[in-house]
Amino acid sequence: MKSFDEALSFLLAKATVTPHTESVVCAQARGRVLANPVISSVNVPPYDNSQMDGYAIDVMDLTHEKVFDVSQRIPAGSLPTPLKIGTVARIFTGAPIPESANAVIMQEQTETLGDKVKIDDKTARPGQNIRRKGEDIAIGDEILAKGHRLRAQDLGYISSIGIKEVEVYRPLKIAIFSTGDELLEPGQTPEPAKIFNSNRYLLSGAIPQLGFELIDMGRVEDDFDATLSALKKAEKQADVVMTTGGVSVGEEDHVKSAVEALGSLTLWQVKMKPGKPLAFGKVGETPFIGLPGNPVSAFSAFYLFARPFLLKMQGMANFCLQPYWLAADFNWTKPSFRREFVRVKRVNDSDTKQTRLALFSHQGSGVLTSTVWADGFAVIPEDTVVNQGDLVAFYPFNDMI
Amino acid sequence: MKSFDEALSFLLAKATVTPHTESVVCAQARGRVLANPVISSVNVPPYDNSQMDGYAIDVMDLTHEKVFDVSQRIPAGSLPTPLKIGTVARIFTGAPIPESANAVIMQEQTETLGDKVKIDDKTARPGQNIRRKGEDIAIGDEILAKGHRLRAQDLGYISSIGIKEVEVYRPLKIAIFSTGDELLEPGQTPEPAKIFNSNRYLLSGAIPQLGFELIDMGRVEDDFDATLSALKKAEKQADVVMTTGGVSVGEEDHVKSAVEALGSLTLWQVKMKPGKPLAFGKVGETPFIGLPGNPVSAFSAFYLFARPFLLKMQGMANFCLQPYWLAADFNWTKPSFRREFVRVKRVNDSDTKQTRLALFSHQGSGVLTSTVWADGFAVIPEDTVVNQGDLVAFYPFNDMI
Repeated sequence: MKSFDEALSFLLAKATVTPHTESVVCAQARGRVLANPVISSVNVPPYDNSQMDGYAIDVMDLTHEKVFDVSQRIPAGSLPTPLKIGTVARIFTGAPIPESANAVIMQEQTETLGDKVKIDDKTARPGQNIRRKGEDIAIGDEILAKGHRLRAQDLGYISSIGIKEVEVYRPLKIAIFSTGDELLEPGQTPEPAKIFNSNRYLLSGAIPQLGFELIDMGRVEDDFDATLSALKKAEKQADVVMTTGGVSVGEEDHVKSAVEALGSLTLWQVKMKPGKPLAFGKVGETPFIGLPGNPVSAFSAFYLFARPFLLKMQGMANFCLQPYWLAADFNWTKPSFRREFVRVKRVNDSDTKQTRLALFSHQGSGVLTSTVWADGFAVIPEDTVVNQGDLVAFYPFNDMI
Repeated sequence: MKSFDEALSFLLAKATVTPHTESVVCAQARGRVLANPVISSVNVPPYDNSQMDGYAIDVMDLTHEKVFDVSQRIPAGSLPTPLKIGTVARIFTGAPIPESANAVIMQEQTETLGDKVKIDDKTARPGQNIRRKGEDIAIGDEILAKGHRLRAQDLGYISSIGIKEVEVYRPLKIAIFSTGDELLEPGQTPEPAKIFNSNRYLLSGAIPQLGFELIDMGRVEDDFDATLSALKKAEKQADVVMTTGGVSVGEEDHVKSAVEALGSLTLWQVKMKPGKPLAFGKVGETPFIGLPGNPVSAFSAFYLFARPFLLKMQGMANFCLQPYWLAADFNWTKPSFRREFVRVKRVNDSDTKQTRLALFSHQGSGVLTSTVWADGFAVIPEDTVVNQGDLVAFYPFNDMI
């Protein structure tokens, strides 16, 4: 048996970044991973500009005057002339500061007197309400690193320096199929001794959400030739082949022998719960991941093993999850030699300002009830007892997508 | 000025759930919001079944025997016959338990002796390694409530009870445009006194990610007639019209008057930072949200106001965010009458098992650097000083998508 960390390290060592990149316009780039750093060729702001609507002024003038002529009007997007000595300029948010002005007075602190404006402010300081040229981003700055996965704010950020397109990795193509003669597809009539396929639909949600392209090959019967032919077909189209079921030590599992016939396979019992049996190998030159058939194990193995493997192949730099250390609102009295990934929900006590973790009551279940109820995994380390109030590592499901 | 809570309550009171629903297959339903509860018409498991590969047995027999005939073989998906007294059945994970058997012995704890199997286990108990019929889900159970937004695990869960399609709300159509003559589009040549449009690309990432359909109308010039015509066009196609910029108290903003000409508008100064000016109204009968033009304010106002408003309209039940209470790794010495949503990053100290919040150094910036650097918002309540180690409410960006 491999420890969780050994299994994950082994897997990640096998993940090589896809060589395929493409250029994509920012408006379409959310979720994509940068294949090059983003370097600024401009200053942001490009010029000193006003943070608010008001009046541009030389603060020195305020020491001896209160009522000023308004010598020009500077809307956003216009080009000002230098400020006439002893006057102010009407200015709007985002508009460039005229030469010779060194501060902006908020319009709420002024009073209009016909053509003139009264400003009674002895506290105004040079630089006040002005955003400086290059203050946020200077020419040559790397604003986003290679390997960064683009979120909405990143797209806004890139656009703010005038960049329209980015070089990103082409999304990985992941071919999936389920095995198991006991499987029915949803919509079919229930039959005795059959269960509905759920892993296929879990993955048809999870894989595209992570930005990968799904090649859904459906269900393959528990038969060596059928499995062999499905693997060959998958390997031709996909960057990674993934199956659920068919990799336990049971005799009815043909996935293992079919993968071995076409490449190689390592089958592990990982010291973790749920998600124990995991298979990794190659079909031809294409990486193969065999997830367990049990839905909760498949869910766990997908998010804890396949996710980092796939994101590393996709070129993402920071695919490792950082836990929140939060107080357990439960007791875990039966230590196990396996690392346990228990399903928990965050519970807030607003009086004490504490965020605690409540445990799902039925951790042993094979169905996804626990993953639907929960907000994330809490980790019970090997051979460890947890008492109420102990800090445990919490991995929110929202951080895994 | 309205407080943050008053502004949010006012806004949410105006959000009415879209009447439009449609039926969607589970494989395509991720991110969609349920318009009906999901009720189970089956038991899960449908029959008592084995949790592992091994031997089905009546544990009573173990008190006087160690070596057993294997009287049948039950792969997953097959139909067993009742267990012959005094024998065991070879059984595989997921396969139905035969009548008269009451436990499964793990194959790792057995030894094959030719045709027979040796089981030396006095500790086996009835029910061991068996998942009971209906143990997880019983016929008639509501497994997911109306208003639930579907994640990958939910799709697996729904599929596990044989349901192929779900009734969900049709995605809201959100029309957006930006105003401001100072705006250039990314890819254009920089010009003095102009800045690149970033809000358009922020929203073109953020809106589809939340499951809405984006109608991107681009940039509209700072002109009353152009704004009026854009609003009319948007209102015809969309469920919600959203703009960025053009709703400050400055004279150059035409959005306010154009919206008023076609419907009604309320313009607020909200006691929050960033994201102060916010406009809400109607264009005809279509809700209108005017976000601030400043990118950080637009980001904040979108996720803190528009997001809950839109998700409520979309039919989602639990759109309110729950904070994590975490220790500040900074001092906030200047209390403000405004509630401040500062951009922070989680920092873990694995020795002390503490998750703390580090503050972005330049909160005043108008560009998105802070939102790109940060993991989320920490809330500094009105008139409050925060000392290092104090617990503050943290809202991860990952929870807002």
